[in-house]
Amino acid sequence: MNEMFERFAIAPNLRFPVAATTFQHTFPNGLVLLAERMEHVRSIAVNFLIPAGCSRDPKGREGLAGVLAEMITRGAGQRNSRELMLAFDNLGIDRHESVGVHHMRFWGSTLARNLPAALELFADVLRRPHLPEQELEPTLELSLQDLRALEDEPASRLMVELRRKLYPWPLCNDHRGTLEGLQAVTREDLLNHHQRYFRPSGTILSVAGSFDFDTLRDQVERLFGDWGGTADPMPPCGPEPSGHGHVNKELEQTHLTVSYPSVPFGDPDYYNALAAVQVLSGGMGARLFMEIREKEGLCYSVSASFTPQKERGYVVGYAASRNERAQRTLDKMIHEFERLREGVTAEEVQRVQVGLKTSLIMQQESTSARAGSLASDWYNLGRVRSFDEIQTAIEGLTPESIAAHLERHPPREYRIVTLGPAPLRLAP
Amino acid sequence: MNEMFERFAIAPNLRFPVAATTFQHTFPNGLVLLAERMEHVRSIAVNFLIPAGCSRDPKGREGLAGVLAEMITRGAGQRNSRELMLAFDNLGIDRHESVGVHHMRFWGSTLARNLPAALELFADVLRRPHLPEQELEPTLELSLQDLRALEDEPASRLMVELRRKLYPWPLCNDHRGTLEGLQAVTREDLLNHHQRYFRPSGTILSVAGSFDFDTLRDQVERLFGDWGGTADPMPPCGPEPSGHGHVNKELEQTHLTVSYPSVPFGDPDYYNALAAVQVLSGGMGARLFMEIREKEGLCYSVSASFTPQKERGYVVGYAASRNERAQRTLDKMIHEFERLREGVTAEEVQRVQVGLKTSLIMQQESTSARAGSLASDWYNLGRVRSFDEIQTAIEGLTPESIAAHLERHPPREYRIVTLGPAPLRLAP
Repeated sequence: MNEMFERFAIAPNLRFPVAATTFQHTFPNGLVLLAERMEHVRSIAVNFLIPAGCSRDPKGREGLAGVLAEMITRGAGQRNSRELMLAFDNLGIDRHESVGVHHMRFWGSTLARNLPAALELFADVLRRPHLPEQELEPTLELSLQDLRALEDEPASRLMVELRRKLYPWPLCNDHRGTLEGLQAVTREDLLNHHQRYFRPSGTILSVAGSFDFDTLRDQVERLFGDWGGTADPMPPCGPEPSGHGHVNKELEQTHLTVSYPSVPFGDPDYYNALAAVQVLSGGMGARLFMEIREKEGLCYSVSASFTPQKERGYVVGYAASRNERAQRTLDKMIHEFERLREGVTAEEVQRVQVGLKTSLIMQQESTSARAGSLASDWYNLGRVRSFDEIQTAIEGLTPESIAAHLERHPPREYRIVTLGPAPLRLAP
Repeated sequence: MNEMFERFAIAPNLRFPVAATTFQHTFPNGLVLLAERMEHVRSIAVNFLIPAGCSRDPKGREGLAGVLAEMITRGAGQRNSRELMLAFDNLGIDRHESVGVHHMRFWGSTLARNLPAALELFADVLRRPHLPEQELEPTLELSLQDLRALEDEPASRLMVELRRKLYPWPLCNDHRGTLEGLQAVTREDLLNHHQRYFRPSGTILSVAGSFDFDTLRDQVERLFGDWGGTADPMPPCGPEPSGHGHVNKELEQTHLTVSYPSVPFGDPDYYNALAAVQVLSGGMGARLFMEIREKEGLCYSVSASFTPQKERGYVVGYAASRNERAQRTLDKMIHEFERLREGVTAEEVQRVQVGLKTSLIMQQESTSARAGSLASDWYNLGRVRSFDEIQTAIEGLTPESIAAHLERHPPREYRIVTLGPAPLRLAP
């Protein structure tokens, strides 16, 4: 089960080759280890994906995963909360937790020599957290504050509403939870949730930087080999949401999104879908920026993004615009979505290719970007894409391939979600 | 005038050496070129500091520098606005502009082979912008939107107020300007402002990544050698502001800052001041995080930062807290400031040293971080600090050195600036 992919790709006209070696090992308990050895770096990035995202929050306990992510570092193994924080600090680890829809993520980076000590701390946190009763109240208080602060953050608040309009329960859950959900959380809930979802099967550990793979695999085996069990599956999804959404706020600006369904991560049309959105929003010369921001000054921020997930994908356009100009901004954005179907030029495709290839190559210089990509590829595709594969796919893009994609998946079924003093309407 | 500093520092127990070579050249017209050649990278980061920050905005034209930064890329040299954007995109450049107090900054990174073409575009932008009349209206509209959007962004709005309370005119200016200032801006103003401040004397160009220095210097000479003139000096400062500040907003949370004067960038106490703030706010085990966030759950975000500039420095504490807990948060923060004077422990100093050294070493892997540091060092210190110098200074920190610093510069003369439904008070 121990595979090794040797990568040694030379991009044309580049002074240095891309030299990296990718390793993968699945332990008998289901834990997946992915590792990329990067030459000439002294740092190491570590990334854990645990199948305990907020889509696993039980009904009536919305926010539980978020509370657990905050509580789990408050003492673990032989260390109390303070000792644990200090142990991380003593390794110079820039550590983070986040709660996504599918996964709770723990990541950090430090100097390569600190990898063994860092993994020991992470093993304590993930497997032996204390979840101490006395920490629950301040933790819940923080979670409540985080939830309330949403009301003062229009762009974030809008994104919460957007998820509710694009995804069925429980995929629409937000990591901040709900007031009722948070107020109901007990220590018992946290213990149960940890027990159910912090399991090796479904967990992905990815590492990028400077390491010796055999040593790394042996250490991971020592720390996680006797971990057992399988995380509970996500409950079946509820009905699909429908209609547009609006959050009423008396603000200076209207924040708006308009979305349409696109393809998921592993789809054969993935790169074409990505390229079409880059034509709209990749770079300063891209269509949305030029047409909406530069020519008309309709809004300071305007962008479109392709948000592919394992099961489905959307294109989401976003802008924040003065209230009286918001409807025109929305209309123009939809006009640009529609205009894609009239075709993209060879120059646009070339520019998109340059942009995608440049960021692909530059990503190779960042250990944390690489660690994140390894895990994301594995979860979404069940494998790690090689540099060559991605580069070849980018080089294969043409105006024709993008047009054919837009025939198969035309912008349609727009979902408009707004936040501001009044909703906007879809032009007839 | 062409100096070269060879750097080859080996940090103890590290697998790889820090190998980088720093170059400096001052051209006869005053333009300073700084460059750091980093081994084993394929990217290049470019950074221009132009002495045209918002402290140069004339009275009655507040926001002029911001408008100029937006207008200056709308056509330059032989290219119109659209052609210029596309030319940058075609090089895969991730390009940014920002307006600080002292400098307008232009920066970006791309693959090393694109450096010559990138510098040609930047030379057009900085020296030969069109500033076209027909772009003025949409640009001003964007600037007005950016200014209005501040009202929906409490943390940013608070920082604008803080500057007004810490710095005299024109150092208190914000890059977004004022409604009256923006409405008065004409194309004539932009042409004059460009003429007065876009000058080689006072401009710093820094480059980090993969390059040949002789080739680079020759190209910079070709592109900028015949540029002439000296930027006008900043006008003399007005009177120092006094008192606390408050912005009234009916929000869920109170955003608060409390500040005290510290030392400027080049001060012998610089590293001690930095370390004292790291004891408060460097890492998860630091005092503010543990005492205010973890133990009491008073606020989700709490931090202190040391903001040294060339002439003066402050320590600024920040938190966003539920309104009813905001006063207690403020009191606790000031208590922690005061408690610094009771001494810091050897363990705390060691942890601060690990954190500072780790980020110092990791910064060496990022071309854009290095390009930024080169220019910042040169502006603030008139020289570039070597890795060894910084490492030695960090290693020289002790509880005694920090205590002696706090004797010389005790927390005092607190300035409280808040945004929320009610002001807070300094406990007697």
